[in-house]
Amino acid sequence: MKKKEFLDAKEKALKSLEKACTEKKADKEILKILSLINNSEECYTSSSCAGRIVLLEIPRIGDKKRAKFLGKWHRTIEPSEVEAAAAKARKGIIWLIAQSPIIHIVAYTTKTADKIVKTAIASGFKNSGLKSIRRKIVVEVCSTERLDAPIGRDGFLFCKERYLQLLVEISNEIFKKSKDKIIRFEGRLRDIFK
Amino acid sequence: MKKKEFLDAKEKALKSLEKACTEKKADKEILKILSLINNSEECYTSSSCAGRIVLLEIPRIGDKKRAKFLGKWHRTIEPSEVEAAAAKARKGIIWLIAQSPIIHIVAYTTKTADKIVKTAIASGFKNSGLKSIRRKIVVEVCSTERLDAPIGRDGFLFCKERYLQLLVEISNEIFKKSKDKIIRFEGRLRDIFK
Repeated sequence: MKKKEFLDAKEKALKSLEKACTEKKADKEILKILSLINNSEECYTSSSCAGRIVLLEIPRIGDKKRAKFLGKWHRTIEPSEVEAAAAKARKGIIWLIAQSPIIHIVAYTTKTADKIVKTAIASGFKNSGLKSIRRKIVVEVCSTERLDAPIGRDGFLFCKERYLQLLVEISNEIFKKSKDKIIRFEGRLRDIFK
Repeated sequence: MKKKEFLDAKEKALKSLEKACTEKKADKEILKILSLINNSEECYTSSSCAGRIVLLEIPRIGDKKRAKFLGKWHRTIEPSEVEAAAAKARKGIIWLIAQSPIIHIVAYTTKTADKIVKTAIASGFKNSGLKSIRRKIVVEVCSTERLDAPIGRDGFLFCKERYLQLLVEISNEIFKKSKDKIIRFEGRLRDIFK
């Protein structure tokens, strides 16, 4: 990709990030690290999601298109919140999912991309790698820790109080670990962008 | 990497695969596709795992080093098998995990690597990408579908019969979908390796 093309794509990505911020659709929690990355000449962020906990209703495995969000939290949660959100469930499997952050970064050179991947892995984002290297060089920063637990079906929760407590506890722990990793990654990126 | 270096590394990888086969440590289910990949001049497989269902005991989240396998199956399973395996649990969280296959492929050129990633994604391995591009070009073929469910703590299962049935049902479905994807990927690879 030529420099001009890269800069045009960057400009477009930043505009859409700005728009998402104005509309409050951007995850506030990671705006700081996104801005750090976007301030570097060598790269920009394309899409990203701060860690979150979601309650999903999925008619069939892998059928993401027909999945319905029953609850979505960018913070730690209480078991009662899961129960309240699950009350909206009707048909399909109810999944409690704790997702680590995902950040997509477009780099101008494979050298920069490689440096970012190594930094991400060293910061605890062990599942990081490159999604594309031909036209656009896209790094995906992500972690291995997650919880993907089916917890009910067709409107009914299968897990009792004590069990739901455990699931929420672990989801919250994954969420907190994600925050720590983001802070660590930010610190290390500051060093390489110096 | 120079061709000679690439071929030496390939020779070494094939020897260790052969050793794993002799010792019956290799996953039989994917040997066919591994051999297809290894017959191509442009690439070789480094490490891989056919899809599996495991029961793990983990003292703390992410502490994989101290994780203990309570059960490991390269096939569909019955709830009673999970219960029997869980009887060995002592301390920590008990996780039921259904993992899709993971295949690592070293490619000689980024062009081949890119082609493999595209083929993998088209075959349903939507989470595929490149783990490394500097010295060695390593493709990771993997899927997004998985189940990572904590199902008990300190020797006790928290899920009752009907719930365990659901978890096992979904794990088996993920396992079967994995097999289908491997077959699809194999077919498409045959076309690009022609």
